[in-house]
Amino acid sequence: MGHFTLIHTDKGSKARLGRLAFVRGDIDTPCFMPVGTQASVKALSPRELKEMKTRIILANAYHLFLRPGMDVIRKAGGLHKFMAWDGPILTDSGGYQLFSLALLREVKDDGVEFQSHVDGKKHFFTPADVLEIQNILGSDIMMPLDECVQYPCARDYAETAMKRTIEWAAQSKEFHSAQSRDESKSGQLLFGIVQGATYEDLRKECAKAISGLDFDGYAMGGVSVGEPKSLLYNMTGIVLDLVPAEKPHYIMGIGTPADIIEAVTLGADMFDCIVPTRYGRTGTAFTSGGKVVIRNSPYIEDFRPLDETCDCYACRNFSRAYIRHLFNTYEILGLQLVSYHNVYFYLRMMEQIREAIRHDRFVEFKREFLSSYSAEESVRDS
Amino acid sequence: MGHFTLIHTDKGSKARLGRLAFVRGDIDTPCFMPVGTQASVKALSPRELKEMKTRIILANAYHLFLRPGMDVIRKAGGLHKFMAWDGPILTDSGGYQLFSLALLREVKDDGVEFQSHVDGKKHFFTPADVLEIQNILGSDIMMPLDECVQYPCARDYAETAMKRTIEWAAQSKEFHSAQSRDESKSGQLLFGIVQGATYEDLRKECAKAISGLDFDGYAMGGVSVGEPKSLLYNMTGIVLDLVPAEKPHYIMGIGTPADIIEAVTLGADMFDCIVPTRYGRTGTAFTSGGKVVIRNSPYIEDFRPLDETCDCYACRNFSRAYIRHLFNTYEILGLQLVSYHNVYFYLRMMEQIREAIRHDRFVEFKREFLSSYSAEESVRDS
Repeated sequence: MGHFTLIHTDKGSKARLGRLAFVRGDIDTPCFMPVGTQASVKALSPRELKEMKTRIILANAYHLFLRPGMDVIRKAGGLHKFMAWDGPILTDSGGYQLFSLALLREVKDDGVEFQSHVDGKKHFFTPADVLEIQNILGSDIMMPLDECVQYPCARDYAETAMKRTIEWAAQSKEFHSAQSRDESKSGQLLFGIVQGATYEDLRKECAKAISGLDFDGYAMGGVSVGEPKSLLYNMTGIVLDLVPAEKPHYIMGIGTPADIIEAVTLGADMFDCIVPTRYGRTGTAFTSGGKVVIRNSPYIEDFRPLDETCDCYACRNFSRAYIRHLFNTYEILGLQLVSYHNVYFYLRMMEQIREAIRHDRFVEFKREFLSSYSAEESVRDS
Repeated sequence: MGHFTLIHTDKGSKARLGRLAFVRGDIDTPCFMPVGTQASVKALSPRELKEMKTRIILANAYHLFLRPGMDVIRKAGGLHKFMAWDGPILTDSGGYQLFSLALLREVKDDGVEFQSHVDGKKHFFTPADVLEIQNILGSDIMMPLDECVQYPCARDYAETAMKRTIEWAAQSKEFHSAQSRDESKSGQLLFGIVQGATYEDLRKECAKAISGLDFDGYAMGGVSVGEPKSLLYNMTGIVLDLVPAEKPHYIMGIGTPADIIEAVTLGADMFDCIVPTRYGRTGTAFTSGGKVVIRNSPYIEDFRPLDETCDCYACRNFSRAYIRHLFNTYEILGLQLVSYHNVYFYLRMMEQIREAIRHDRFVEFKREFLSSYSAEESVRDS
């Protein structure tokens, strides 16, 4: 069973250094989890992820339930074997996808009825169902069913959804506790998710209620859905101050390098985001000097690597001019290289964050990182 | 400068074992050259190609002239540096592409006028121009400009094109000899190309004329353009019997495993083909038991590797069920894995071919390989 140790808190901020220990490997926090929604981190192989020291990846129960389906995963011997990833995996319940992707969704008190976005087939998920799916997946960290609302969301509805999320969390916890008596399922952690949209009081109420349920970790959901950054940071701060300090704190689905650094400042430990791989596929590289949109003409004869301070496989071997040519001629290697570099950039940034916290210089690191990162970004994005 | 050594000829056939030695590395023949038309072997990185023991790759002068253009390649320090491939490279002149891809082509006695298929811009290539382009690329083996005709082709036109190919070959050889006095260009081999469509007498006439020009190797062009297999094999046999035995023999653009084995039987040494990577991208795997079309339903719960006799990265780690899922969900890793496996399959087949020739058992190998390969193929393709 996984175990979290809080190692050190930065002297100048709430930034935390910790370690999540699993049988499948230890994870130093703050950490970034590359997203492998459909049992593949897009355009990257498991050995490439290992090579860049990925410790944990994310997959999605909703997607995997629909394709390839639970029969295939069960017969494969679980998700780790199916996708040949032997490190820890966190599976999202699919709460977010039910509200962003599924067709004809109807939320009832006992669960969600929806139509598959793949084939239109009807399904019904209860909180217990999504945990059973995650049992079959065999993920190391499971997420419970929650109700994720859009931004903006009327207060009334946000409150109803938040209360339902608490009710489902309680049911999930109960189901998981009963399950944990079964040895084969006792290795899976269960995190709680705090909802409440952009309403301070709802977030507080939810954070307190979820904290009372003794989860293995605490996540903030329903963010990065289009709300202004100020609201994102505000809600993050409020929630992180209320959830148990001795447990890992996971901010779901964020974000840009600046978002992650901001959330770390407020005490967040875990992140996942599609940004590095999605940007990678469209040819935008994250670099210490800001974003490089590789298709742009300044890079035609730029024989420097994507990031001169980076020692990843892409940066050690290929120039911006070459990668630009690959994108220009629709060569798949281009998106592979930028995806590789971007995930590497995120992982290295997390390493730098941890190093800074360890030496009580996170605030300094943050200032330096953001000033170098944004200065160039504004020039190059113009 | 590259040097070819004929090591052994199989006792039961005309199959030859040889070695092409370059400063950038030795190539055992018969060999397969993965195709990197636009300075990238599609969906594979240089280190993956090295890992699977790729010794030489192919690139295309016509494509690279249009994108990224010669200025970029020159400033990059040549094609090897540009694409981070330090092994030998053979560059096709683009003769084939001028006739298959370019717009509004007009063949004149001194060269070809054409419009770029990318931006419609007009260009004119003389035989000397395409060698100068390949000088800038810095390839280890250059191909001269030739006129490639379609199948079927009227005899009159085939004869005119063949004669022009001979004339251009003579000009190319002369230009190359003059160039070779320049030390920086003296490392590049130049092969001759035999044309003549599907007419025995034209092929013979061309083979004799080209053989008289003392090229570093001899290629057969204008095949695999839609002609029946019997004609392909017939022309191959005729040409290979006429070109100098002490020089390498290259059959351009073929083929399937069966085509390659047939051509080796007739004395061919070098091959290039887009088939393994193109099939890889659409999810068809070459295996010792025939082709596996991974999207097909029999593979939904097939947890065996693509090829049970293969030890490539894809086969050591992933199941047919997983790779099918990747194709089914449009995950890029799927086409990466099948492309990887297919090129590996081709390279391993060439290794087996060489081993069989070495032990004078090529005919036996051919029978065994084709019987195992086709038996399954007919079942699975049905």
